[in-house]
Amino acid sequence: MIKITFPDGAQKEFKEGITSLEIAEQISPRLAQEVLAATVNGEVTDLSRPILADATLKLHKWDDAEGRHAFWHSSSHLMAEALEALYPGIKFGIGPAIENGFYYDVDPGEGRTITENDLQTIENKMKELAAVSHPFVREEIGKKAAMELFTAKGDEYKTELINELEDGTITLYKSGNFNDLCRGPHLPSTEPIKAIKLTGLAGAYWRGDEKRKMLTRIYGISFPKQKMLDDHLVFLEEAKKRDHRRIGKELELFTFSPKVGMGLPLWLPKGAELRQNLINFLTGVLKKRGYKIVATPHIGDVSLYKTSGHYEKYGADSFKPIATPQEGEQFMLKPMNCPHHCEIYNATPHSYRELPYRMAEFGTVYRYEQSGELHGLTRVRSFTQDDAHHFCRPDQLLDEFISIIDLVLYVFRVLNFNDFSAQISLRDPGNREKYIGSDENWEKAEKAIVEAAAAKNLTTTVVKGEAAFYGPKLDFMVKDAIGRKWQLGTIQVDYNMPERFDLTYNGSDNQKHRPIMIHRAIFGSMERFVAVLIENTAGKLPLWLAPEKAVILPISDKFNDYATKVLEILKNSDICTLIDDRNEKIGKKIRDNELRRIPYLLVIGEKEAENGTVAVRKQGEGDKGEMKTDDFAAFIHAEIEKELEY
Amino acid sequence: MIKITFPDGAQKEFKEGITSLEIAEQISPRLAQEVLAATVNGEVTDLSRPILADATLKLHKWDDAEGRHAFWHSSSHLMAEALEALYPGIKFGIGPAIENGFYYDVDPGEGRTITENDLQTIENKMKELAAVSHPFVREEIGKKAAMELFTAKGDEYKTELINELEDGTITLYKSGNFNDLCRGPHLPSTEPIKAIKLTGLAGAYWRGDEKRKMLTRIYGISFPKQKMLDDHLVFLEEAKKRDHRRIGKELELFTFSPKVGMGLPLWLPKGAELRQNLINFLTGVLKKRGYKIVATPHIGDVSLYKTSGHYEKYGADSFKPIATPQEGEQFMLKPMNCPHHCEIYNATPHSYRELPYRMAEFGTVYRYEQSGELHGLTRVRSFTQDDAHHFCRPDQLLDEFISIIDLVLYVFRVLNFNDFSAQISLRDPGNREKYIGSDENWEKAEKAIVEAAAAKNLTTTVVKGEAAFYGPKLDFMVKDAIGRKWQLGTIQVDYNMPERFDLTYNGSDNQKHRPIMIHRAIFGSMERFVAVLIENTAGKLPLWLAPEKAVILPISDKFNDYATKVLEILKNSDICTLIDDRNEKIGKKIRDNELRRIPYLLVIGEKEAENGTVAVRKQGEGDKGEMKTDDFAAFIHAEIEKELEY
Repeated sequence: MIKITFPDGAQKEFKEGITSLEIAEQISPRLAQEVLAATVNGEVTDLSRPILADATLKLHKWDDAEGRHAFWHSSSHLMAEALEALYPGIKFGIGPAIENGFYYDVDPGEGRTITENDLQTIENKMKELAAVSHPFVREEIGKKAAMELFTAKGDEYKTELINELEDGTITLYKSGNFNDLCRGPHLPSTEPIKAIKLTGLAGAYWRGDEKRKMLTRIYGISFPKQKMLDDHLVFLEEAKKRDHRRIGKELELFTFSPKVGMGLPLWLPKGAELRQNLINFLTGVLKKRGYKIVATPHIGDVSLYKTSGHYEKYGADSFKPIATPQEGEQFMLKPMNCPHHCEIYNATPHSYRELPYRMAEFGTVYRYEQSGELHGLTRVRSFTQDDAHHFCRPDQLLDEFISIIDLVLYVFRVLNFNDFSAQISLRDPGNREKYIGSDENWEKAEKAIVEAAAAKNLTTTVVKGEAAFYGPKLDFMVKDAIGRKWQLGTIQVDYNMPERFDLTYNGSDNQKHRPIMIHRAIFGSMERFVAVLIENTAGKLPLWLAPEKAVILPISDKFNDYATKVLEILKNSDICTLIDDRNEKIGKKIRDNELRRIPYLLVIGEKEAENGTVAVRKQGEGDKGEMKTDDFAAFIHAEIEKELEY
Repeated sequence: MIKITFPDGAQKEFKEGITSLEIAEQISPRLAQEVLAATVNGEVTDLSRPILADATLKLHKWDDAEGRHAFWHSSSHLMAEALEALYPGIKFGIGPAIENGFYYDVDPGEGRTITENDLQTIENKMKELAAVSHPFVREEIGKKAAMELFTAKGDEYKTELINELEDGTITLYKSGNFNDLCRGPHLPSTEPIKAIKLTGLAGAYWRGDEKRKMLTRIYGISFPKQKMLDDHLVFLEEAKKRDHRRIGKELELFTFSPKVGMGLPLWLPKGAELRQNLINFLTGVLKKRGYKIVATPHIGDVSLYKTSGHYEKYGADSFKPIATPQEGEQFMLKPMNCPHHCEIYNATPHSYRELPYRMAEFGTVYRYEQSGELHGLTRVRSFTQDDAHHFCRPDQLLDEFISIIDLVLYVFRVLNFNDFSAQISLRDPGNREKYIGSDENWEKAEKAIVEAAAAKNLTTTVVKGEAAFYGPKLDFMVKDAIGRKWQLGTIQVDYNMPERFDLTYNGSDNQKHRPIMIHRAIFGSMERFVAVLIENTAGKLPLWLAPEKAVILPISDKFNDYATKVLEILKNSDICTLIDDRNEKIGKKIRDNELRRIPYLLVIGEKEAENGTVAVRKQGEGDKGEMKTDDFAAFIHAEIEKELEY
């Protein structure tokens, strides 16, 4: 008999060689139906693997990433089997599970191509094969045998991979007629794969190397129930409608240019206004909270990043250094603002009485990302952080944390992110030598974070071992209108940078002391945050953020002069307004301008021109009645004030 | 006889071989005393050179740069003669006239040094030699003879220079005992050099090459009258007091860090606030004037600058391109914003109806300058331009020019730059092939500039041949409080960039047309402009610009609580205020805070605490009486509004 320990600590004995699936069956037939993979002694594995000694066991259903991963990985093999049936002689690269679904990179062979039109056929074949319910059979095999097998099959991609493996570690998984080089884990059989959708095609260089052959990547997603797939497709449709890249183009917020370079956003006037509205809002809030705003250059001498440690850590993956025509200097595009801020801290002496020093900058940083990883505004090569550093005494840590959490909560409320969670990342207590800074300081900092979170009534998850080597941290995740989670604010304690830059303050004892540095961002990056805002609101921004607050719609040319008068009044009240003086029916003008997501539509005709009024329509809500133009201006300002109130 | 034509067109005959000095004597003995050099047939030359054929002649007195140049160049030789008398065997590098005075680079010889303490002795020797009044004697000499002369003297610096000269073009100038390799021109004799001041010493590598010997550079200045020197020394003292580098440090406005890199300013909180006040002010003005604000990255692909032509023109002297770890891309730090703005223009279609498109950005650019050329904020490697581009139709050029001149004048008035001049730079009419764009367009543009300047009552100088190859321009120079001139605003027409970026708009004829681009800046660079502001005001900024508006001075500790109350009231009115709660006498507090250039000092004691008032002192003006704190807040806002009014 062997002893199995479950996640809740309960222990139970089973016969040696029992599988995770059999254990699930013994617990309940329902569980056995839902379980997809298992973690045995910390390693994710097939449900069908026998357990040969005492072990810890966690069973994974759909809700666990491990469960979905096995499901989608098995779906990928199923797709490969279907492809082999439809395209005899097709060759296979790699076929992993990904965050949402799976793909397989394939080489259909000389003169054969797979197009969007073929996806339905492949999908049908997959369903047909899945219905037969073939088990996934795992086999351990020697390197030589593996080479022979795939050489015989003529699959040079697999033989290249095998060539790089060590002998004795090679496993194959076979299901139906398809046998693949694979580490697993897999489902017990193809049977649970009930709902399948192949979602797209892309070209992908073999091993990501542009000098090698371009393979065809086929993407798909699958679910245990048709209803889940249907919901997912609705979600995708909704996400597509909210795609910030599409809305950004429609509303002329930002653009990219191949001449400027990939991943380098150009903010068009309306987008720049939106971005600046966010910056102005946060600047006002920061000033009231005692932050000092600074401004630093976008490059720094390599020696700066050698001092900070960034060069050693990230140098190779960064944009390369910039040389000067003479004098042999080397500069880096700045990947972070903190080294510059340390130099500003060091530019003047500091007394214990003036700490905390809260230093903030909307600092643009540059980080190299491979072109394939770039995505709209969420993954770019240049972004502006709403960065700040708190330099404080050890006894101020708790207050500083409370003040930052308070600020984050305020900003989330103003921006209607009401569903959020927070994660506290602490040291791995069993591995203390990994971290720099004294035990005493770490304990103080960890305690401060936990207490500050409690003081602000945050719901938190505490994760041990997730702290950075230089200090513990607190991260915020917000859920958007269609349930997606985005990581936003972060607060990190840092004992490292103050050492490296020899930061000091004069204590009440007239001795030099080391301040603690806290890194914090709320939006994270202006670019990514604007993307999240757009996707969350589907482009219908709150009034205070909207680059244009209102559009004037004269019902005919006759009222264009009156429209100009209304425009002037609103402009003098600093309300950015447009006129739509196209020669179109008022119904069409209203429809078109609703699509532009302008919050207020002001219809004007004979009556309004006579009364000095506007007929107000709110976007998506319709008629709000007639108002004197001045009253409308006051109404807009009052609404904005209310939005920012809290 | 030969015919001499004077600048006013008058002609007169003289005997062949007459010198410019003799001509001056014939005109008036007074003129002969004041004249320092002459331009004969367009070439600046010695007064004592005989004129052998018909020629044009311009005589230069002190007011002409050419006159001062000859004066200071001769003074440099005089210093060399003094040095040779005091340090026998001393060797000479080069000794030119500069913008304000002259220098000579010398090698005193092994084991000998020249220090600040020696300057007075050298100065005395120069005066002694000048009083003797040696003539400057010019000699033309062959290369071989020149080599022999300086080899015999053992001056390896001069022989190196001679070695690089062509035979037959070599001239020597001798005065007293000093004979120098020199192109001239010089004064007739040392006699006019009445007032001399040696101003400083510096190390200078021979030929600017850090691998070669470091010579001693001795700086000096000289005048024809002692009173002129005295005035100059007072001016220097005043300029030193206003030096923005000193004031920037005193007021903690900005700093530089060797780790960040030379010429890369770090804006400390107060400086960043000042800079942002300027940006916010101008942004508000621009929005009211229909500008669209955009934001672009600080790098661009090399291909962008190949398209714009900047790479070909400036590539070699720029910061070197930035490579990526993969993908073989090459980016440049952006040296100008215009290529990015062209890409923004091209991101959306444009109709003739929406032109002019006025696109503005506070865009930070990077330009390589040699470390020796860097100077505080006036010569940096990274600066933020208040850049804008007007894309307009040809028929809009005049209106656009008027609108920009109007904007420049408004900004100058608000900032109290009331003494300024403007220069219109036109084509060289004799050299039209140098310029791109059609004759018709050039004529239109030049006419538009001249008319716009006249419409705005500008006093202008028109200079032919000074236009850029891509279009004519208008530049503004302001005079500061101690008479120095600074170039600020510039407006440039550009026919080149629209071609290179293929910019178009749809005309009323539904055909594609090429817009004209106008580049314009008002401040030029935020960095340089802040320097000019500081030097103009000696750090006493107008209220609206001052980073801190007031400081509260409690007369004793007892009133610190009341000080905090006053602070809160002013903070809630967005008036940045400090408390000086040091345990010092009120007189000392007032003196110290006057030095910090804070516009208002608010003294509080028993009476003020009881009455809810503050005793207001204006910086440099003294007591302004008691005010309710709220009234003071309103008073500050009213004063700022008045400052920005006009």
